[in-house]
Amino acid sequence: MTADSGQQLWRLRESVARLHAELTRYRLVAWTAGNVSARVPGRDLMVIKPSGVDYDDLSAATMVVCDLDGNVVEGDLSPSSDTAAHAYVYRAMPEVGGVVHTHSPYATAWAARGEPIACHLTAQADEFGGEIPIGPFALIGGDDIGKGIVETLSGHRSPAVLMRNHGVFTIGRDARAAVKAAVLCEDVARTAHLARTLGDPAPIAPADVDALYDRYQNVYGQRPASTAGP
Amino acid sequence: MTADSGQQLWRLRESVARLHAELTRYRLVAWTAGNVSARVPGRDLMVIKPSGVDYDDLSAATMVVCDLDGNVVEGDLSPSSDTAAHAYVYRAMPEVGGVVHTHSPYATAWAARGEPIACHLTAQADEFGGEIPIGPFALIGGDDIGKGIVETLSGHRSPAVLMRNHGVFTIGRDARAAVKAAVLCEDVARTAHLARTLGDPAPIAPADVDALYDRYQNVYGQRPASTAGP
Amino acid sequence: MTADSGQQLWRLRESVARLHAELTRYRLVAWTAGNVSARVPGRDLMVIKPSGVDYDDLSAATMVVCDLDGNVVEGDLSPSSDTAAHAYVYRAMPEVGGVVHTHSPYATAWAARGEPIACHLTAQADEFGGEIPIGPFALIGGDDIGKGIVETLSGHRSPAVLMRNHGVFTIGRDARAAVKAAVLCEDVARTAHLARTLGDPAPIAPADVDALYDRYQNVYGQRPASTAGP
Amino acid sequence: MTADSGQQLWRLRESVARLHAELTRYRLVAWTAGNVSARVPGRDLMVIKPSGVDYDDLSAATMVVCDLDGNVVEGDLSPSSDTAAHAYVYRAMPEVGGVVHTHSPYATAWAARGEPIACHLTAQADEFGGEIPIGPFALIGGDDIGKGIVETLSGHRSPAVLMRNHGVFTIGRDARAAVKAAVLCEDVARTAHLARTLGDPAPIAPADVDALYDRYQNVYGQRPASTAGP
Repeated sequence: MTADSGQQLWRLRESVARLHAELTRYRLVAWTAGNVSARVPGRDLMVIKPSGVDYDDLSAATMVVCDLDGNVVEGDLSPSSDTAAHAYVYRAMPEVGGVVHTHSPYATAWAARGEPIACHLTAQADEFGGEIPIGPFALIGGDDIGKGIVETLSGHRSPAVLMRNHGVFTIGRDARAAVKAAVLCEDVARTAHLARTLGDPAPIAPADVDALYDRYQNVYGQRPASTAGP
Repeated sequence: MTADSGQQLWRLRESVARLHAELTRYRLVAWTAGNVSARVPGRDLMVIKPSGVDYDDLSAATMVVCDLDGNVVEGDLSPSSDTAAHAYVYRAMPEVGGVVHTHSPYATAWAARGEPIACHLTAQADEFGGEIPIGPFALIGGDDIGKGIVETLSGHRSPAVLMRNHGVFTIGRDARAAVKAAVLCEDVARTAHLARTLGDPAPIAPADVDALYDRYQNVYGQRPASTAGP
Repeated sequence: MTADSGQQLWRLRESVARLHAELTRYRLVAWTAGNVSARVPGRDLMVIKPSGVDYDDLSAATMVVCDLDGNVVEGDLSPSSDTAAHAYVYRAMPEVGGVVHTHSPYATAWAARGEPIACHLTAQADEFGGEIPIGPFALIGGDDIGKGIVETLSGHRSPAVLMRNHGVFTIGRDARAAVKAAVLCEDVARTAHLARTLGDPAPIAPADVDALYDRYQNVYGQRPASTAGP
Repeated sequence: MTADSGQQLWRLRESVARLHAELTRYRLVAWTAGNVSARVPGRDLMVIKPSGVDYDDLSAATMVVCDLDGNVVEGDLSPSSDTAAHAYVYRAMPEVGGVVHTHSPYATAWAARGEPIACHLTAQADEFGGEIPIGPFALIGGDDIGKGIVETLSGHRSPAVLMRNHGVFTIGRDARAAVKAAVLCEDVARTAHLARTLGDPAPIAPADVDALYDRYQNVYGQRPASTAGP
């Protein structure tokens, strides 16, 4: 490892540690039950939260570096118990640079009923391109969760999957994009829940969903040069 | 531009940046999905949030100044993707000095059902003068959203409109008044939602709504001299 | 006024200003729509929030001192638009030393339906001694709200009344006790709402309500010497 | 008492005081209505919150040390009005090192209906090993609450009991584990409530609940050496 790639990895550890603060800020997680990871660009490695450690105690130093089979490469602590699922996604989906897992309450309520979130909101069309799908029930401890995520999201516009009776996994081109998807998934799940409680929300025409999705993915935000590094 | 008007514009940029903190404080927005703008008094300009920038990173320096067709006049960043809607409102409604847009969850749930919020609360009569109306479904990218806002709110007492399947737009004599309307719109939408969940709230007689609205608009708060400049 | 009573009044102004922070901490209020007042012990005066001023800007200096007809005695700002209601309560109920008004969302939802909160929780029996009652619909601007509060709470155990289509008023031996009642009123209203959403909560036997109320009023907390001055 | 055991006791007082901040962070408590206690290892003593004292004012110095009959041994303040229940649990369940009591709103709503929380979430299987049970209605002031907790939780996997019409008690090997159970109990109660509001959540097969519980209790988190003292 060169000094440069060592420094780059340290900055990624800092960034992953810091992104967990968005999970607590938006109340997506309770106690230690949620985690963010990032692929190390150009290497078969990932940075992930340590298992069972308080969000307040996360820092670059406490993050864990694993290979894409989930083996620890750097770090003194055991990695998240969801490491196998994150690793499976990175192996199967080379375009994914970040993965987030939460049990955020409104989204997980849809997951508990096994009911996808139909698209009744322009914000959902923007970010998810249509419905947010349900993934299979899968036990922790092997590749079943990872497989369920990949099979559900492959070829799907949505960066979020509601794993049955479990919670949310989101993917993104980097960890920040996956965190954004987790925040917006809960936001959309909450509004959809509230709308449905008092009646039937009106659907958005599929062509309008397409138009919104296309515009948001290609026009929203700042041009890359001003907001993101290479 | 004189030094005075430059200083005044800078203070307005500071004020608009700071007002976004009310959107996060009251949890009206998730990630970067909500924005405040202000008309520059006496000039055909507006100050608005940059697109896709974190609320924590807003400051006078990052705000964008546009003309009332939405073209950038000052600022290094792209303006909010909702700039066209804000600009349309300023062109069509000369009495409006501030516009706010959010997807606040309870209000947006009413928007998703396309159901106006009937007036069952004195606080709603005070601020909104009756029901909070529904605006049309409109796609982003042209003048449709702006037109929908203006057509719904022109001649209506309510400073808030629930745009179908989308979210809330509010107007005010200045940006602070529009932010206040956005905060109270969500507050009223939440209480109305909770009331309806368990039964039928009692209506307020139209004459009482009128009396409450009239008093609140004319008597509430401090006399102008002690709280606001000209 | 002696120097001593002047100092005591200033400390009361500080205390009333500070107690508003509990209203925001527990999210009982939005924008400026809620207020706390305290009777000045031994004098026909009250300290109350100024009208339409942000909670962040409250301090001893911005508080307003009124006589018990609501006329300003000290202070540069106009008093709360609810001053007449507070004043009426102090005139009619000499044992009351503090009054609080909020539109806290769950409690106000019960008020919008005109439905008292039946006692299904030991915490409600403790603090309210049974159901939390509904007061009449009353317009602001005269003595109607004050009368409604006093008629509903006189001879009732509950220190909270849900004013129809409006919100909550609470009373206490001092301002802190009234704030406590406002906090617990919303807490109880929320849990009762949630319980009712999915079924019928079990009632508590009246004799058990009596036993809980009696114990809590007489045994809970620290002995006066250790927690409160004279 | 040796200097060492005195120092150890002071650190435990600090730790119990600090753990109350988790109750407010997760909004499990309103005003002063919730408390944490810890058994003093190797001695027939417990450390518990003083009665009716604000969470902001808790420190090692304000904590109360009681024997396991609830008599004050150290401390200037009266102990929590729930001390008898905590003490009963420590006497009856020697493996318990921490007890927490809250009226957290979603869990207490299930308690008000007397309805156990069936297991529809992997997070519930992990921490609670199945349903979260209902305990009896019991009045404060004797051993009835303590007995109800012990009879419900003895031989049950769940570290949480929903006491009818009252609230939540949780137990753990230490105070931190009991606080974790209280946080996760409310989290699970909320998601289960939301899921049920719009339909029937899918059950998890008993064998899967067993597998999840076994794994979480034995594999999750860091190895003892790195996260906890003896």
